[in-house]
Amino acid sequence: MKRIGLLTSGGDAPGMNAAIRAVVRTAYTKGIETVGILRGYEGLIEDDMITLTRESVGDIIQNGGTILKTARSERFKSYFGQDKAIENLNKHNIDALVVCGGDGSFRGACDLSKKGVLVMGVPCTIDNDQGYTDYTIGFDTAVNTVLDAVSKIRDTASSHDRTTIVEVMGRECGDIALYAGLTGGADYILIPEVPVDTGAVIEKVKEGVKRNKNHCIIIKAEGVDISTADLCDVVADGTGQEVRSVVLAYLQRGGSPSAKDRMLASLTGSRAVELIDQDSSSRAIGITGNEIADISIEEAVSIKRQVNLELLSLIDNLSK
Amino acid sequence: MKRIGLLTSGGDAPGMNAAIRAVVRTAYTKGIETVGILRGYEGLIEDDMITLTRESVGDIIQNGGTILKTARSERFKSYFGQDKAIENLNKHNIDALVVCGGDGSFRGACDLSKKGVLVMGVPCTIDNDQGYTDYTIGFDTAVNTVLDAVSKIRDTASSHDRTTIVEVMGRECGDIALYAGLTGGADYILIPEVPVDTGAVIEKVKEGVKRNKNHCIIIKAEGVDISTADLCDVVADGTGQEVRSVVLAYLQRGGSPSAKDRMLASLTGSRAVELIDQDSSSRAIGITGNEIADISIEEAVSIKRQVNLELLSLIDNLSK
Amino acid sequence: MKRIGLLTSGGDAPGMNAAIRAVVRTAYTKGIETVGILRGYEGLIEDDMITLTRESVGDIIQNGGTILKTARSERFKSYFGQDKAIENLNKHNIDALVVCGGDGSFRGACDLSKKGVLVMGVPCTIDNDQGYTDYTIGFDTAVNTVLDAVSKIRDTASSHDRTTIVEVMGRECGDIALYAGLTGGADYILIPEVPVDTGAVIEKVKEGVKRNKNHCIIIKAEGVDISTADLCDVVADGTGQEVRSVVLAYLQRGGSPSAKDRMLASLTGSRAVELIDQDSSSRAIGITGNEIADISIEEAVSIKRQVNLELLSLIDNLSK
Amino acid sequence: MKRIGLLTSGGDAPGMNAAIRAVVRTAYTKGIETVGILRGYEGLIEDDMITLTRESVGDIIQNGGTILKTARSERFKSYFGQDKAIENLNKHNIDALVVCGGDGSFRGACDLSKKGVLVMGVPCTIDNDQGYTDYTIGFDTAVNTVLDAVSKIRDTASSHDRTTIVEVMGRECGDIALYAGLTGGADYILIPEVPVDTGAVIEKVKEGVKRNKNHCIIIKAEGVDISTADLCDVVADGTGQEVRSVVLAYLQRGGSPSAKDRMLASLTGSRAVELIDQDSSSRAIGITGNEIADISIEEAVSIKRQVNLELLSLIDNLSK
Repeated sequence: MKRIGLLTSGGDAPGMNAAIRAVVRTAYTKGIETVGILRGYEGLIEDDMITLTRESVGDIIQNGGTILKTARSERFKSYFGQDKAIENLNKHNIDALVVCGGDGSFRGACDLSKKGVLVMGVPCTIDNDQGYTDYTIGFDTAVNTVLDAVSKIRDTASSHDRTTIVEVMGRECGDIALYAGLTGGADYILIPEVPVDTGAVIEKVKEGVKRNKNHCIIIKAEGVDISTADLCDVVADGTGQEVRSVVLAYLQRGGSPSAKDRMLASLTGSRAVELIDQDSSSRAIGITGNEIADISIEEAVSIKRQVNLELLSLIDNLSK
Repeated sequence: MKRIGLLTSGGDAPGMNAAIRAVVRTAYTKGIETVGILRGYEGLIEDDMITLTRESVGDIIQNGGTILKTARSERFKSYFGQDKAIENLNKHNIDALVVCGGDGSFRGACDLSKKGVLVMGVPCTIDNDQGYTDYTIGFDTAVNTVLDAVSKIRDTASSHDRTTIVEVMGRECGDIALYAGLTGGADYILIPEVPVDTGAVIEKVKEGVKRNKNHCIIIKAEGVDISTADLCDVVADGTGQEVRSVVLAYLQRGGSPSAKDRMLASLTGSRAVELIDQDSSSRAIGITGNEIADISIEEAVSIKRQVNLELLSLIDNLSK
Repeated sequence: MKRIGLLTSGGDAPGMNAAIRAVVRTAYTKGIETVGILRGYEGLIEDDMITLTRESVGDIIQNGGTILKTARSERFKSYFGQDKAIENLNKHNIDALVVCGGDGSFRGACDLSKKGVLVMGVPCTIDNDQGYTDYTIGFDTAVNTVLDAVSKIRDTASSHDRTTIVEVMGRECGDIALYAGLTGGADYILIPEVPVDTGAVIEKVKEGVKRNKNHCIIIKAEGVDISTADLCDVVADGTGQEVRSVVLAYLQRGGSPSAKDRMLASLTGSRAVELIDQDSSSRAIGITGNEIADISIEEAVSIKRQVNLELLSLIDNLSK
Repeated sequence: MKRIGLLTSGGDAPGMNAAIRAVVRTAYTKGIETVGILRGYEGLIEDDMITLTRESVGDIIQNGGTILKTARSERFKSYFGQDKAIENLNKHNIDALVVCGGDGSFRGACDLSKKGVLVMGVPCTIDNDQGYTDYTIGFDTAVNTVLDAVSKIRDTASSHDRTTIVEVMGRECGDIALYAGLTGGADYILIPEVPVDTGAVIEKVKEGVKRNKNHCIIIKAEGVDISTADLCDVVADGTGQEVRSVVLAYLQRGGSPSAKDRMLASLTGSRAVELIDQDSSSRAIGITGNEIADISIEEAVSIKRQVNLELLSLIDNLSK
């Protein structure tokens, strides 16, 4: 009987539990055992493992966070850490490792793969910054969480005729700002992929004022090259309007996963086990168009996410 | 200057307002005027129209329902109704008509197209029953609404060791049941596309009881060939368990649209206007894979939705 | 060291877990042990008990349902059942029993009290039908759940110019309908405490139509002396309007408890243990004005809930 | 026929629209006209008024913010401002003014009252800092909004074994922190009414770690005498744990009002008009126990809110 190791790594993302459930239950139907590794690569190094049965993943599909806990592991970046990890995998007769995480976690998985471990990557990060897949697990929930916040902020902004800057997550990838900006009806968005143009922001706010639209919502990704506090000042100075900011921070990571994220988690988690069952080599699972697809995990980490410029110009048109 | 007529028709769907906003604002940027037609084809026959400015569609992207109101029109199926409609379009110098609705509404649009009216179809229905597009506007919101309800129902079901049957919308297409079943962690689903097998339902419930899993969630589409009340009785008799049902009904139609539905509405609504601007022939807009696509509206209505059997077997595996 | 038995009984109510947490943690700080009894009086008869530690009630305050499960027990109404219950309480050296439930559960508690068991009643029922307390735990959450549903239903009702009848829980007490009606902006409500006047309903709908208010929300408690289906027919016939209905059913029982319900659960659960610690006699805990109060449990079950007629007339005035 | 002026002032609060509806509709049933004054005292000074009909307040009870907009007015604090305000009230033959707002707005109302204007105060502020009433409109919604955020933050905190500090609103009154702390299951709360004891915070976190409870939620009101950033550092240094913070800010002001807030708004708004109809003197309306009550508005502003110390000790007991 095969044995799979399963871990969640990096920042938590809504849908990780749905992916865990899919891996464990699919493994069960194929007669494969699943060992849960706690706190990502940290638990792998420290041999902190639990048995996962089909019952132990019941009633978790709707929960945010991860029952396996997660961590970022500095030690795992060293030879020592990786050797210890492999030693522990062997000790438990684990044939393959499923890694649920983002870019950094996949790089760690690559390292293991190069050393002969069969690894499957399931893309879990709210940032949507993995270039090989159209969407990552957690992204849709995060965008909906931002929309919910924007809707509340809009009540206050429009009652007070105020411009509000909402800072969302995204250090290198502006997708949360881009999607939430378009669907939240934001007046302007700032993302790391596009150079900051504070003049354009000021112009946009002034244009609204001219039309008696005295409240304005600006969404800014955290990775943008101006601090939110500075942007507030610049916009206030340039427009004479009252400007306030809200930093959504860790709010965006939690919450019950959306239908879309649970679906993606179920499909990719399940596919990871099928690939292991079919004696595949190490792969990263993702979604392309409407299809679940997989590519070599080494290739996966080499593909940089491209910003969707069409959406950017659509925001401009639709916020008119 | 071109003039577009815009109407929403059939059952309302969350995202219709986002589509209206996208049409009006895109038209504005292209120098096209938009005339809003109230209550679908009824308002077209009765010449019940309003002017839509870019301001008039502000702050509506987040709202369920439709500011243009909607109706089903029996009169429009007659020659008289359609002639009257065309007369009114001409009277207002309307060059093209954008129809936001489902299958029935698109058939009406086809009839107009055959009589020489340029029509664009934007797929708005929670049922996801339009075969030419992967998703329709409103479907994702409806599935998330069902998930929210299932989550509440699960509290009671697990506190009482009870089997609960949740009836969701879907007369001919079981997609709401299918997607909500998979993502809601349902134990069993019944959809119109698959013959009813009450024996299998009973077996599933008994299997859970054997494993001390005394609560069970069954999701059933309304179009399934057994009434929910009868199914309750059959399952109660066959298992000896307490069985209750909830009919979600019109709850599923309302609510603030999800990010995914607002995105789809923004993209398809915008594309509809671009096609008109490019002097296209009558088209139905949709999404295939991750791409906004359009096909002849006549062809669109001829494509029957196929059920995704893979999802069905995945539910079976993951509910183990 | 004292030992408390704790059970939840009758229909589940959001906030039961918050009450359980409050009982266990307050007991802990007083050096009292808590034994959890599963499935209400059923578990008491069957000696189905678990130890509850302060850790075992962590992270449950936000969850609907009850970790102790609940049931209605026919057996407990018999001498045999009650004797067996007392036998099991003695066997486990339980000094006092905390019963979280509604009217029926409190009657059972009274029976035990008369036979010498020290019992404390914590009012948990969404129906708000316990006359000795201003509010019961679960009621506020249920009303907010109904409001959320009404908000979704309103989207569809106003898009379709339709009258919608929303059936809410409440067999003998119309408080859910009353509070949700007033706060949901319903046009008319029907409650069991007031004789049905279908003529008045029809009048109200017609009056709205006269003012071009073509959608109408009517909230009806389940215990009202006309079926929802019949009321639909009567209103449709009498007004010529399209009338639809939604039965919210078990949806109202689940969900994360509101702040108010968690507060009430924390205060009353905590007080129950304090009274035991102070060697009080059997009491029912409740809230009067803003004060946590307690009265003899026998007296508590004898006080019939009075309908708040002022709220009823306020609905009439505010729906004008 | 009497004429009422109605304004909302200060920070917006969920339920202001419900209060507006209650005032206008109650006035309607009594044959009183309502004039809406925009942007609080600013609009009163600038003579910026609209007529409010019963129709114009339809479908607003569920909306956050205020349709009348709100502002803080520096000018109104001057003799000039107040004289101009009274001039405009006379110009429009306004017999009485209803002010929906918090403490600062009530002080302005007092000034007008002393100059002979009949004013009624309806307590609208999320801060619950008005001492003469048990609750203010918006407070319950704000606490529920914080609970929702805490629930999301808990997902991440527990997945990462992390201590999180949640900063909530409350400059001088810690009620949001107090209520959300108790009902959100926070481990520790800091409020302006109690001197900061960082040693106690550190002790609490360490105590949890000792019991393997590696995540911890601390709720801190903004008015507490240590910045959130500093508190993070102090706790991290003192415990060796990872500590993060989230500042909820304007999120807490928006959103659909809860049932409790809509009820309080409906009752107090309605009472304000009744008092005017009965030729009362200037009053502040509030809730004491379960009763709507009113006192002289001068007295109302002189009563300082007292912190509920019992709740504080309850948090300590229940977080054990």
